[in-house]
Amino acid sequence: MTNDFPTNRPLILISNDDGIDAPGLRALVSALSGLGDLCVVAPLTEQSAVGHAITVRDPVRARPWPFETPPDVVAAYAVTGTPADCVKLAIDKLVPRRPDLVVSGINQGPNAAVNVIYSGTVSAATEAAILGIDALAVSLCRWRGGDFGPAGRYARRIAAGVLREGLPPGVLLNVNVPALPLGEIRGVAVTRQAHSRWEESFVDRVDPSNQPYYWLTGRFVNLDEGADTDLAAIDDGFVSVTPLHYDLTAYEALDALRNRSWDG
Amino acid sequence: MTNDFPTNRPLILISNDDGIDAPGLRALVSALSGLGDLCVVAPLTEQSAVGHAITVRDPVRARPWPFETPPDVVAAYAVTGTPADCVKLAIDKLVPRRPDLVVSGINQGPNAAVNVIYSGTVSAATEAAILGIDALAVSLCRWRGGDFGPAGRYARRIAAGVLREGLPPGVLLNVNVPALPLGEIRGVAVTRQAHSRWEESFVDRVDPSNQPYYWLTGRFVNLDEGADTDLAAIDDGFVSVTPLHYDLTAYEALDALRNRSWDG
Repeated sequence: MTNDFPTNRPLILISNDDGIDAPGLRALVSALSGLGDLCVVAPLTEQSAVGHAITVRDPVRARPWPFETPPDVVAAYAVTGTPADCVKLAIDKLVPRRPDLVVSGINQGPNAAVNVIYSGTVSAATEAAILGIDALAVSLCRWRGGDFGPAGRYARRIAAGVLREGLPPGVLLNVNVPALPLGEIRGVAVTRQAHSRWEESFVDRVDPSNQPYYWLTGRFVNLDEGADTDLAAIDDGFVSVTPLHYDLTAYEALDALRNRSWDG
Repeated sequence: MTNDFPTNRPLILISNDDGIDAPGLRALVSALSGLGDLCVVAPLTEQSAVGHAITVRDPVRARPWPFETPPDVVAAYAVTGTPADCVKLAIDKLVPRRPDLVVSGINQGPNAAVNVIYSGTVSAATEAAILGIDALAVSLCRWRGGDFGPAGRYARRIAAGVLREGLPPGVLLNVNVPALPLGEIRGVAVTRQAHSRWEESFVDRVDPSNQPYYWLTGRFVNLDEGADTDLAAIDDGFVSVTPLHYDLTAYEALDALRNRSWDG
């Protein structure tokens, strides 16, 4: 860890959950170029749906990565771990100074509604928020392919705004960009997480040794009619920006539970 | 999936993150015996700190498990996946009818404050709540060994209360039991999640091929002086019961963010 390059520019740590080779990561690096010094610390392999997993029973390794670097990239590493591992290890060991901002993405696929819970992309930004660093997670609402350009433009715009104005303590931004041409995106909407669930239906198969196995599949069900949700904004062609925190307390339930007898 | 046994008793699904062989799981099964029909669906291997990970890129398998069964155990399986996988697969494929309650634990070690985010134990209960089923996660506040008996007693008492009175929709209970003899536990306190963080300090090692690797270690820092937190209750000898939900929206930040210009 050295301090031998200019420190008057913001330091932006970039991570993701699709892995160091993902096109969305390259698009994000290009999009943020010029905003500050960029460090890329991303998982060596895809880590989708890992939630907020961290690696506690095995060591992790960080490999300097020959990232095709715009001049602003001051360091790049691939880490044998989860997105949360990447952020923790980067901040403790890999980046030259404490980052001013962490940006995670650009994820291939939306991370809205209940999917926030499962998202590795969001977990990298959450980990930064826990460590007291402003952070955003950015996702393109399309499961395969598509143009990351418009999402990159909005990532840059929102990142610049956060660098300028900061975020409330403990709050990160979850950004979902509709898969539309830039000119068809109607702007930014600040939203809440829609209430939703997956209805699972595992597919059963039998292997050549006649043993059963299951593939997770499911149908996403939106249970929320609100116009102020992330899903509604995306459907309407807006970039959804949802402030998230990591206090999971259901405050609205505290009083009723305090009035119960627990001595049963 | 059969329906050929009595359905007038509650069905309780039991899972954990320490794995099917964990002593805390056995203690929980014993403690809940008599409350209803019990199904055990737990990870084949330890899944601590997996957060809300789910397995989407690989198939999962469920192996009927020769659990040393009290008579109430109507099914037991070990699953090659995470706690959230166990709950999803159990409900879709393995249990004879929809559970009335999901109980996860008894975890070896506390799951309070920010650790809720990383906890596989909590994620099993969260997954149940997402699927609309009442759930609790139970942890013993001791990292190794200890007597699971008192935690089992409180797990049973709280489970019975939830079976009787239900929970608000989308709310699960996170229960942390101090590692004290039953007579020294001062009762139940309904709490909120304490604000806290880990200060990471990875330990660097060098392998026999002269390549570096890192072990995650850290120091837990409580940033919250509140008397109404999970940490304070546990410290004071109470069983901490925190209602959690999976809406991560930081509602208190919405207005300020809506008043910002996002057109940078």
